[in-house]
Amino acid sequence: MNTKPLLHTILSPGLLNLYDVNNSIVVIIDVFRATSTITTALFNGAAKIIPVANVDDCKAIGAQLNAITAGERDGKIIEGLQHGNSPAEYPRSFIDGKTMVLTTTNGTKLLHMALENGAAEVVTGSFPNLSAVCDFLANTNKHVILGCSAWKNRFNLEDTLFAGAVINRIKDNFTIHCDSSMMAEDMYNLHKDHMYNFIRKTTHWHRLSKFGLEKDLEYCVTPDVANVLPIYKDGALTVS
Amino acid sequence: MNTKPLLHTILSPGLLNLYDVNNSIVVIIDVFRATSTITTALFNGAAKIIPVANVDDCKAIGAQLNAITAGERDGKIIEGLQHGNSPAEYPRSFIDGKTMVLTTTNGTKLLHMALENGAAEVVTGSFPNLSAVCDFLANTNKHVILGCSAWKNRFNLEDTLFAGAVINRIKDNFTIHCDSSMMAEDMYNLHKDHMYNFIRKTTHWHRLSKFGLEKDLEYCVTPDVANVLPIYKDGALTVS
Repeated sequence: MNTKPLLHTILSPGLLNLYDVNNSIVVIIDVFRATSTITTALFNGAAKIIPVANVDDCKAIGAQLNAITAGERDGKIIEGLQHGNSPAEYPRSFIDGKTMVLTTTNGTKLLHMALENGAAEVVTGSFPNLSAVCDFLANTNKHVILGCSAWKNRFNLEDTLFAGAVINRIKDNFTIHCDSSMMAEDMYNLHKDHMYNFIRKTTHWHRLSKFGLEKDLEYCVTPDVANVLPIYKDGALTVS
Repeated sequence: MNTKPLLHTILSPGLLNLYDVNNSIVVIIDVFRATSTITTALFNGAAKIIPVANVDDCKAIGAQLNAITAGERDGKIIEGLQHGNSPAEYPRSFIDGKTMVLTTTNGTKLLHMALENGAAEVVTGSFPNLSAVCDFLANTNKHVILGCSAWKNRFNLEDTLFAGAVINRIKDNFTIHCDSSMMAEDMYNLHKDHMYNFIRKTTHWHRLSKFGLEKDLEYCVTPDVANVLPIYKDGALTVS
């Protein structure tokens, strides 16, 4: 009898309700750029990151905690917040020991949806912490949902490629009856050796490169450059 | 200035509301098996096919028109309907000149959603009528949405591969800023030369092959064996 836990990939927040979230660890994936920024800030010493769903909450909680407020809508910094959603904004010299309150277009939205749906556990993943995510999932023996944040619910390639990278590494530890997961792994294998070129074809690249973010986006698909595991607990993401 | 019409691929009925359906031709894709059955029945001389959303409507309209009632739920024939959702059930010797009322788990559901969302035009596609679909779309000069019926809103591979096959043939006639479409074409190119083997890996194969439908499923991914274009008009699918 096969007793391996199940792994599914969700290609859009709009499909989250089809899956058994409350018996699963949910990995929030928003490669461009929320979950790349989160792991980078924590890798560089941030005390914690409080993900919030909207700008008003971001401002209010930031003021209350005397924390950094950060976020983006449609790839741009939000008026009234101090910082944006770029990993490059959070070197150790700036972020060490600080608390950040973060709101973004897609990633923090999916994180809150997963919590509202009763996810057993929530972590975040992107290429900069690929190995940390895989090491954690491989040994957990729980069901896993890889949740792609997409773009305003539309499927995107970069989140799918990250899901594929995870599956490629840890599939032997799971039972996978999921066409989304098979597709994600195929896409990862097809493009893994030329990621910097491939991401230039994505719709998100064209959206964000208008703001001069090319280096940012290349960083976001580089494995293990900020290799910690952000885990959500008591309202914040931290590393143990 | 680029004046080519837009082409998008929708990976699940659950994402249909994100797209501008009412300015587009929508291609309903349900490879396993509704749209394979529809094109086969029309190719073999069916007068028309009336797609309906539920079993009660199927029985009522079938009785009223003295038509064949057909359909499936979860891959099985429905009690009280005369026939199932297999292309093999509709050879010319049986279906020529007849009217069929059809209800299925996914394909007829998406078709009705597209109509309710005001689709400018609705046609159906699957590998058996790949060329007819491509010839029609290439010359239409209208926006196109390739609508994958999926499985109870979960992404599936076989519908995506058909979308990829269409894109692969007609992409030069369209503007495509759509990660779903890029992925679909990649997946088609990756698997087009070993389709019969590849479909054995899909979740839908495992679901339907339990009912002994292997030959049916191979037929459904064979190009141009029932090469007509079903167009929806006045409540029914017909070929001109």
